[in-house]
Amino acid sequence: MTVIGIDPGIDRVGVGIIEYTNNKYKLLFQQLIHTDKSLSTPQRLVGIYEQLQEILSNWKQIEAASVEKLFFCKNVTNAMIVSQARGVICLALCQAGIPIYEYTPMQIKQALTGYGRGTKQQVQELVRMLLGLKELPTKNDDVADGMAMAITHINTARSLRKLQGS
Amino acid sequence: MTVIGIDPGIDRVGVGIIEYTNNKYKLLFQQLIHTDKSLSTPQRLVGIYEQLQEILSNWKQIEAASVEKLFFCKNVTNAMIVSQARGVICLALCQAGIPIYEYTPMQIKQALTGYGRGTKQQVQELVRMLLGLKELPTKNDDVADGMAMAITHINTARSLRKLQGS
Repeated sequence: MTVIGIDPGIDRVGVGIIEYTNNKYKLLFQQLIHTDKSLSTPQRLVGIYEQLQEILSNWKQIEAASVEKLFFCKNVTNAMIVSQARGVICLALCQAGIPIYEYTPMQIKQALTGYGRGTKQQVQELVRMLLGLKELPTKNDDVADGMAMAITHINTARSLRKLQGS
Repeated sequence: MTVIGIDPGIDRVGVGIIEYTNNKYKLLFQQLIHTDKSLSTPQRLVGIYEQLQEILSNWKQIEAASVEKLFFCKNVTNAMIVSQARGVICLALCQAGIPIYEYTPMQIKQALTGYGRGTKQQVQELVRMLLGLKELPTKNDDVADGMAMAITHINTARSLRKLQGS
């Protein structure tokens, strides 16, 4: 199973592509899509869309996408801007024929640490361990969050398969 | 001046293209982009994006776009879904090289009725009168809102020109 995990944003979009085979996770690709603050929001949306399209065209083996669900946000204005970025991300994924799964921050913690109240640091440490990395990409919390998204979907899909007895 | 006005939504996107020449407004085109409720949100985003792209490719003379700004919304979940639609709309416009102007519902009322507290009915009646239509498209409030958006930008641009003495 190869999954792309995406942490949406307008400044930064964290992307991680993870393969799961023979009970092992392997990080195939990571990228921080970064947009210039001097650009207008529509120009930044074009940047996100085009960079994601390029990644998807290079990784045809992706079977599923895992995108963070913004289910609540204290800052409504910020939530609406991030939602616009999320819109163009879902557009690119859907146009590439990749099914999209959504997880809330609590579901991510649940899938990685086994309970919904793990800290961000605990989640990132688990991502690092599962992927067998010496260290996570520095200064790139968003990329690590993207990897966590991908692992969340892999673990959720595995749990479902176990439940279904397959 | 030819302006496309867009009222964003995930179910329905109202579109009106209006030309302003010789102190007259002329409705060139109107369309309700409608998406099927049985589709997933990403699929609906693809529908909105592709239909808007088609409109833009048919109307190369568009010089500006006027898109409603969601500056506050009681229903945050709904605001975030509509923002995703707004994201793909801004993407299509920006890719077509069309500058985007944003107006709040209050600015629309201000530009059309002269004050910020006009009713929706007053706004729509003014749209109908300015465009010289016998009646507005029935059942299509969203399309009329799209036309109001376009007129708002035309009137705002005219006011600015007067201020600048040109």
